[in-house]
Amino acid sequence: MLHAVIMAGGSGTRFWPESRADWPKQLLPLSGTRSLIQDTVDRLATLVPPERVLIVTAARLVDAVRQQLPELPPQSVLGEPCKRDTAPCIGLAAFQILRRDPDATLAVMPADHAILPAQALRDAIGCAAELVEKEPGRIVTFGIRPTYAAESFGYIERGKPLGSSRLSGGESCDVYEVARFREKPPAAVAREYLAAGNFYWNSGIFVWKARTILAALEKHQPELFARLRTIASAEGTSEFQATFEREFAAIRGISIDYAVMEHARDVAVIEAPFTWDDVGSWQAMARLRGVDTEGNTIAAERHVVVNTTGTIIRSTDEHLIATVGLTDMIVVHTPDATLVANRHDEEAIRRVVKLLEERGWKEYL
Amino acid sequence: MLHAVIMAGGSGTRFWPESRADWPKQLLPLSGTRSLIQDTVDRLATLVPPERVLIVTAARLVDAVRQQLPELPPQSVLGEPCKRDTAPCIGLAAFQILRRDPDATLAVMPADHAILPAQALRDAIGCAAELVEKEPGRIVTFGIRPTYAAESFGYIERGKPLGSSRLSGGESCDVYEVARFREKPPAAVAREYLAAGNFYWNSGIFVWKARTILAALEKHQPELFARLRTIASAEGTSEFQATFEREFAAIRGISIDYAVMEHARDVAVIEAPFTWDDVGSWQAMARLRGVDTEGNTIAAERHVVVNTTGTIIRSTDEHLIATVGLTDMIVVHTPDATLVANRHDEEAIRRVVKLLEERGWKEYL
Repeated sequence: MLHAVIMAGGSGTRFWPESRADWPKQLLPLSGTRSLIQDTVDRLATLVPPERVLIVTAARLVDAVRQQLPELPPQSVLGEPCKRDTAPCIGLAAFQILRRDPDATLAVMPADHAILPAQALRDAIGCAAELVEKEPGRIVTFGIRPTYAAESFGYIERGKPLGSSRLSGGESCDVYEVARFREKPPAAVAREYLAAGNFYWNSGIFVWKARTILAALEKHQPELFARLRTIASAEGTSEFQATFEREFAAIRGISIDYAVMEHARDVAVIEAPFTWDDVGSWQAMARLRGVDTEGNTIAAERHVVVNTTGTIIRSTDEHLIATVGLTDMIVVHTPDATLVANRHDEEAIRRVVKLLEERGWKEYL
Repeated sequence: MLHAVIMAGGSGTRFWPESRADWPKQLLPLSGTRSLIQDTVDRLATLVPPERVLIVTAARLVDAVRQQLPELPPQSVLGEPCKRDTAPCIGLAAFQILRRDPDATLAVMPADHAILPAQALRDAIGCAAELVEKEPGRIVTFGIRPTYAAESFGYIERGKPLGSSRLSGGESCDVYEVARFREKPPAAVAREYLAAGNFYWNSGIFVWKARTILAALEKHQPELFARLRTIASAEGTSEFQATFEREFAAIRGISIDYAVMEHARDVAVIEAPFTWDDVGSWQAMARLRGVDTEGNTIAAERHVVVNTTGTIIRSTDEHLIATVGLTDMIVVHTPDATLVANRHDEEAIRRVVKLLEERGWKEYL
């Protein structure tokens, strides 16, 4: 059966001050009224019922995630004792699900991306799930056709076509061999990839049999696999929590791309028939919510906007935001901190968080 | 004896959101830790004792002013029932003081200007007071040597010299006849005034005998004078408050410049031996508090400033302000409203207040 594994361990600082260590991006309603993780679960609803959804998040976020997703059984939200990147997270989920469903197929995806339309995602996952039913050793990824020479994404170079089918919405589901995974490239290389036409952005969405990904982890990351197996063996015993914490902490953090994808054979890529946004920074709010006739995106209850263009205005409460003569800015108000940033200097927002850490102003992190 | 009349009725909106209808500019600590009205009283302290200071403010501000100035007797803070510009305010104060001191000399000044050094102001007022002792019919004004072709100030054209004396700090006190008062000029005219060299900005600071200014009001504004006399006659009776409210409201608002100065003879101007700032907008905060090596003026307890230059940052509480990539901006945080404005578009801040009025968002005014 098809299960969803939603990776919700992110602790991004790029949505500071709205995102905080104990309230990261995936819990924020950046695209509207539902949070990104709620959107992610909603999107899958007619394909994967709540009892077959497994969310892996940080232990400190478990309660918040459960509160945002009351439709999920509590055991569907699993807390990692520490952050160890995506490979341990995925392996942990695969072990969990395999106990209940030895033939489980997993659709693995991040909790904090925006995807539209939901039906196209569901159809594309269905298409991938069919493929792994036919060829259970397959690892299926989803590639996003690049729209600019992004340096911040990994790329997938596609190989020969494996087939094509028509989805319910009329989109086609084109499947290719993966020729190679490519790390985040420098600008010049990104431009080459874009020009070449046979490169995709790596969406971080995968479909595979639980036993396939575990076999791949066993083969390529034997130590990681051994520790996950030790954790899985302790399940249901009084030793479980201690074993989990000890063994998980002992794992070297590694992404699934480095751990498996770059070594694996039998990897296919489906060209995503949906639009995809990694919601990587405040800029995304303008893409997700759209802009008004002045080019502003305003997500604030109370605002007065004068001579202002190209600006993102966000207030999380009733606090009034007034702007005068702004061009291409970001203004974010929260109850204890306000950010005013030049939209074109957004990477420097990370420096703010770093400075807060250096000063020990933990209450704002 | 010398009395001080401090006009504190201003309800300026240019320091919004820190200034509000019930907490205007004169009550704000814009130059440091003391409010402008506290600075104004402090500045006069060794020249005029508290019992000879009279503050005229709006009735709704009386309590706040008394709280800020506990050293003044309560009766030294007088509340106008409505706003009627400077001439009625000055006449009212003159009538009040004349009852106690028929030969009173008044130093009249706004509560919301910044003047340095205090000793030079005291000496210059002393110099003016001497002049009106010798020539009791004199009206003495203080002129500020203009530093640019300001369109927002009235000007005083000086006539022939009347004398010069040396003040305690070594500055000279140069007294001239006033040739003419000039209204706020358009840009081209302001440039001519600046080039001519014999024009001053009208500081709004005056020295005169109480009986002299009342005689001038009686002559040039007989109706206004009559109503003030009616109010003064009711003093101490059970009818006073009703009379005050009725008669004061019936007065047509008019500035002392239009009401008296433009008609009066015997007006002298002293070239101010002090620096003067009308604290007319947020820009003033940079002049009053100075700037750091990046050209920023930061009056906020908690702030993180990255790639930011020429910016004024103000927070009235512990709320954190973080700025990234700003140039020449104004960021003002208060508990219920935040303003982010381009420093060069500051006049538009008034439009914010206007929009708030139009929307009926009274809580922010």
